[in-house]
Amino acid sequence: MFIARHCVTFPAMTGPRFTNLANSLPATVPFVGPEAQERAIGHPFAARMGANENIFGPSPKAIAAMQRASADIWKYADPESHKLRQALALHYGIGSDNIVVGEGIDGLLGYLVRLLIAPGDAVVTSDGAYPTFNYHVAGFGGALHKVPYIDDAESLPNLLLKAAEVDAKLVYFANPDNPMGSVSSGAEIKAQVENIPDGCILLLDEAYIEFAPEGAAPNIAINDPRIIRMRTFSKAYGLAGARVGYALGERNTIRAFEKIRNHFGMNRAAQAGALAALQDGEWLEHTKNCVANSRDSIAAIARKHGLKPLPSATNFVAIDCGGDGMWAKRILDGLVSEGIFVRMPAVAPQNRCIRVSCAPEEELRLFDIALGKVLTGLHSSS
Amino acid sequence: MFIARHCVTFPAMTGPRFTNLANSLPATVPFVGPEAQERAIGHPFAARMGANENIFGPSPKAIAAMQRASADIWKYADPESHKLRQALALHYGIGSDNIVVGEGIDGLLGYLVRLLIAPGDAVVTSDGAYPTFNYHVAGFGGALHKVPYIDDAESLPNLLLKAAEVDAKLVYFANPDNPMGSVSSGAEIKAQVENIPDGCILLLDEAYIEFAPEGAAPNIAINDPRIIRMRTFSKAYGLAGARVGYALGERNTIRAFEKIRNHFGMNRAAQAGALAALQDGEWLEHTKNCVANSRDSIAAIARKHGLKPLPSATNFVAIDCGGDGMWAKRILDGLVSEGIFVRMPAVAPQNRCIRVSCAPEEELRLFDIALGKVLTGLHSSS
Repeated sequence: MFIARHCVTFPAMTGPRFTNLANSLPATVPFVGPEAQERAIGHPFAARMGANENIFGPSPKAIAAMQRASADIWKYADPESHKLRQALALHYGIGSDNIVVGEGIDGLLGYLVRLLIAPGDAVVTSDGAYPTFNYHVAGFGGALHKVPYIDDAESLPNLLLKAAEVDAKLVYFANPDNPMGSVSSGAEIKAQVENIPDGCILLLDEAYIEFAPEGAAPNIAINDPRIIRMRTFSKAYGLAGARVGYALGERNTIRAFEKIRNHFGMNRAAQAGALAALQDGEWLEHTKNCVANSRDSIAAIARKHGLKPLPSATNFVAIDCGGDGMWAKRILDGLVSEGIFVRMPAVAPQNRCIRVSCAPEEELRLFDIALGKVLTGLHSSS
Repeated sequence: MFIARHCVTFPAMTGPRFTNLANSLPATVPFVGPEAQERAIGHPFAARMGANENIFGPSPKAIAAMQRASADIWKYADPESHKLRQALALHYGIGSDNIVVGEGIDGLLGYLVRLLIAPGDAVVTSDGAYPTFNYHVAGFGGALHKVPYIDDAESLPNLLLKAAEVDAKLVYFANPDNPMGSVSSGAEIKAQVENIPDGCILLLDEAYIEFAPEGAAPNIAINDPRIIRMRTFSKAYGLAGARVGYALGERNTIRAFEKIRNHFGMNRAAQAGALAALQDGEWLEHTKNCVANSRDSIAAIARKHGLKPLPSATNFVAIDCGGDGMWAKRILDGLVSEGIFVRMPAVAPQNRCIRVSCAPEEELRLFDIALGKVLTGLHSSS
């Protein structure tokens, strides 16, 4: 159908005129997927512990719901995600008009940034926090201001001070934090709400909240227009590949998403899976137990090999490798070449760590063996 | 977790500062889904023939692939959609770097408009063509110029004349056309390529191309930077609810999507389903036969009731109801109240028609009965 094999040349003037903003952006991806790494190294990973996926899997009821819905996949999904939003509204005791469902938190982050940020508008985040947020801010021409972590935790007070200083329209704060696994109490966060500057909105990314200790989610009025919260079915509910996230907030803020979102962006089976997952509270408890046990096991393995696990309120553990970023990178590269997919923070001094996702015993056993082998190799060669 | 039930009030200055562009947009949705209509009328539709979904369904192999992949849904999808892009590259005899996969054509339209259109930039389409394209153009502040249909068909020559006149950066042209079902030959389109103005890109939406007669797809070099084509698994492949579309084009244009797209926007099971669907050519032929037969049946039903079916190169038939838009709307409303979901063109004179999607015999039987009842009722009351 296409003439592809021989080279056709065209005058220089032809072709797309991208916007100045688009021309200024690099072609980039916030995360290289494990599949691309597998293609590069030529074999599949033996243990997939790098993307904070929930290897314990979703509720069997969610899998069954998606399998049933696959037979009806000739139908577009309900663009309003009505059933899922109704169920979430009931779950939280809020209105369904306080909820927008989207293609993962990643998709919702893009929409929120687009709604708020014109070129040059100020945004604040922590240096080393979620790269996909930064990707979207850059993608809409925002001026991103970064605040350092303090003791491996994001500092909400410092983020808000910076927001006031630069007149930010948007502040990103993840609780619990990724990639360090640290957590603030809900009371600490709530105490900071009065410090949100006028005309600024605090984006509270709670992707990992279900793994956190009781009280980590602040009790904030849903109609407070200064805050928008984002949550997901990708982590505790084990549906990363389904792409279902949601934002909770004041109804006018939520309604604004209707102006720009891809109304037909949701997968129909994913909606059904998320609904079933939400309704299986028992499986969620099971998952939380598995994750808590796995965190302890990862910490024990780290200690056994002379490394220092950091406390975690998530489904991953940041392990302080006891050196600088170069040293941690050598350990990470060693693990990858041993077939263990893990990742690491990008910014010093957090990049002294590797980040290991919770996993069942078999994966932990492989990680344990590989870590020992890698460390022995590195120590004997140094 | 939230204080939702009592009303908390906040100072007027608090809350989000949306961009001027976002403030200027209405909260809108290009299409109200049938589920929302069902909620409004209080019962489900008996026949779902309004969204040009493929009611004959996807390949059983695609369903099986999605069901298998559901068990692995805890994994994120490969953000590069590598396997699917490789298969498409083989299918078309082009490079995988000529292909970007996205969340349906709708998602890809949004990305393309974002790459090209800054506020005030000119865009050209046909008056009454795909509303979701217009939605994205408005969403990025583009100045949309519309060209009338000629004899119920989009006019590529006129679109390109208008593009030259307004210095458009982007021209939308669907072949076959939705909502009228008309088609241009590939040769006619190819003859127009030299008339694409410098610095303009022709977006050729081929969502329905598999249903069109042989020769409707123009033979254009894949590295021609003046054209980008979009195709989908939503129509002939029966996977509307999966959300898998793709764009084909010159590699630099395709690479630009990497700057802004939601890299983790794809559903993992949907990738597997699309791959299996692409490889089941036999099912595609089966589907095309079913659709061709159904087109004939819809046309016969229309004629039987004294209405005039238009020729169609798609999986739907536009039926000229023999009056104006008000008359067609009364017929459409009557059908909807009889439980038959159909839609109609939005703009005169095309809105003298209703648009009916191809469907199996049982749905056609219900449509036939309902159409007779509605027309009898309207004629007796007029």
